[in-house]
Formats: sequence, C-alpha cells, structure tokens
Amino acid sequence: MELYSGHINRLIDELSSLPGIGGKSAQRLAFYLIGLPKDRVHKLANAIVDARENVHYCKECCTLTDDDICPICSNQSRDHKTIMVVENARDLAAYEKTGKFEGVYHVLHGAISPMMGIGPGDIRLSELMKRLQTEEVDEVIVATNSSLEGETTAMYISKLIKPTGIKVTRIASGVPVGGDLEYIDEVTLLRALEGRTEL
Amino acid sequence: MELYSGHINRLIDELSSLPGIGGKSAQRLAFYLIGLPKDRVHKLANAIVDARENVHYCKECCTLTDDDICPICSNQSRDHKTIMVVENARDLAAYEKTGKFEGVYHVLHGAISPMMGIGPGDIRLSELMKRLQTEEVDEVIVATNSSLEGETTAMYISKLIKPTGIKVTRIASGVPVGGDLEYIDEVTLLRALEGRTEL
Repeated sequence: MELYSGHINRLIDELSSLPGIGGKSAQRLAFYLIGLPKDRVHKLANAIVDARENVHYCKECCTLTDDDICPICSNQSRDHKTIMVVENARDLAAYEKTGKFEGVYHVLHGAISPMMGIGPGDIRLSELMKRLQTEEVDEVIVATNSSLEGETTAMYISKLIKPTGIKVTRIASGVPVGGDLEYIDEVTLLRALEGRTEL
Repeated sequence: MELYSGHINRLIDELSSLPGIGGKSAQRLAFYLIGLPKDRVHKLANAIVDARENVHYCKECCTLTDDDICPICSNQSRDHKTIMVVENARDLAAYEKTGKFEGVYHVLHGAISPMMGIGPGDIRLSELMKRLQTEEVDEVIVATNSSLEGETTAMYISKLIKPTGIKVTRIASGVPVGGDLEYIDEVTLLRALEGRTEL
C-alpha cells in the first residue's frame, strides 16, 4: 500500500526529481506546500511557469533575460570592448556582485567536456565568435571555472581567438583570499607559485 | 541594478521562501527550472497546485488524503480499536513503513506549545475525543515526538482520556537501536534507565 495519496505522491515525486532535493526534503516540502494558503501556492506555481515561458537568451551575450537584450548589454556606460566569458548566468552574477567589472559578458551555458560528450558545438561559442567579428573588441577575459572542463574550454577559446589578433586573458588561479595554505590542495598551491607576482 | 531579470528574481524569491531552501539553492533551482523542457515545468507546477487543491483531511483520522476517508481508515482488516496518535502525516508514514502496526491513526497536525502559542484548540484533539465517543476504542497509543511539545501533548491527552476509562499508552523513550551510549544525551540515558525492562 502507498504511504500517501496519489496527489501527494505525485508532488513528492516531482519535487524529489529536482537537484539537491532528496526524498526526505521532498516529503517535507510537499507537506509544507499543502499547508500553505492557496494564493501562495498559485503564486509559486505561476512564478515557475512564467520564468520558464518568458525567460530567454540575450541576443548579445546569451545570458538569461526577460528582454531581447539584457540590461548589461543595453547599458551604454559599460565597456563593450571587454568581454568576460563565463560558463553560466550564476557565474556572471558572481562577478557582477563584485561591482568592479565594467565590461560586458558572454555566457557559454556549459563547458567543453569530452567525458560528458559536450563538444564546442554544444555551448554558445559560435555566438561569441560572431560577436568578435561584428563588434569592436579589445580583450576577451576567459573566466570559465578552474575545473578540468573549464580549463579545456579556456584553452579551446584561446586557440580559436588568437588568430584574430584580439587579446585573450585568463583569470588567475591561486590561493583564495583568507585561505589557509595547509588546507589547500597541491595543484592550487603549484598554480599559486607559478602565477606569483612581484611585490 | 538587479543581477537577474524580473521573472528570474520573482522565481528565486518564491523558491527561497520555502523551508530548507536558501538563497544559493534557490538560484540553482531557478536556473535548473528555466533549463527544463516546458512540459516538465508544467507538470511540476500542476503537481503543486493539484496537491494543494485536492488534498484534504481524512474525516476519520485527519491525515492528508485525496478521498473522504483515507486508505488506512477505510481498510477493514486493520484494528480500528487501537488508535495511534501522531503529530503529523510524516510521523504516520514513519510508523507505517515499519509494517508492524495493525491499528489506525489519528493525526494532530501539531503539538501543544505554550511557547509558540499553540494550545489544545489549535490541534486536532476535539476530533480525537469525538472518535473515542462514537467508536469502540480499546487503546490510544500516544506517539507524539519525545520533545518538550510532544511530551506536553502526551500528558494533556492522557489527562483528557483517563476519565473515559480507555487505556492510554505512550511509546517508549530510550537509547535508539544501534546508538552508542557515549554519544547519547543525559536525558535520554535517564529515560532509558527509568524505562528498563526485565530480561
């Protein structure tokens, strides 16, 4: 016999298919949702559907936006000659929160991963190359993650852009600020050593 | 400037208002949902709304169910003379998973908590007393949590039922099976001592 009724089971199944939500949390969430006022539940369901229906890629930088062109790309006070390439919109948000980057972005929506069968054609690379041909760009800063996939993608992008003569740079790898050396992995320590700068 | 567009922000806000979902997970979930196929997103939204609209309290035991009477209460092969009182439907499911309890349940939907302003009138106690008057019941097993609120509720229920002459029992408190004594709190150790049984 099923522990819960059909509607509850269906909700628990749907919720537990979401990333980071296990069986127990899905149960807890389901009962929480059933106990909420109806208008709160409709608001949540509508927010989910509306976001999925109305959010799309910015025609310039491919980030997710409600408009044709995202607010960053349409902001003329930003430096459109410097493009930072990131893997996803969360990484864009992370740099944007620093408030120090004045350029624009390009969101790849992924990274090259031969292991996962993700090739250069599966991420928004051709869109980046098109921008470099049609816009006047001085520098492309590759800010993909410092993982195997991120590094592979960075190498690929650099090889692709080098022939155009546009400057390609990579964000620094090293010891995170406030990081305690003894807890940091060897690869990072070696990277930090290689990337040392004069004081 | 907002980091994300209106629809994304609204979705992140809605998601982060759910229990156990912080700002970072809400962001991650929102982008995951936006990347899902449309039919998957509609299925999730519908499951949420349908569960909220169609699930209600069982007229007998107050658990959450799609029907007027839940499958456990309508199962005539169960022992309807033994009622286990639990705080919520998740606790019912936990006991039901053991597969050893043959009786029926009563779900309080909460526990008495003077600190939180939850009194006996705020949980499904009058429904329990009505059952005891109209049905033939031999034993009420109080399986509220072993927290302050659960114990308070258990005491209250026992005082309420005692005059009716119906047997009231409480599930045992003690060392959990597989528990290592050195890591168990003093209150539990004392409970286990008080509740010792002859071998």
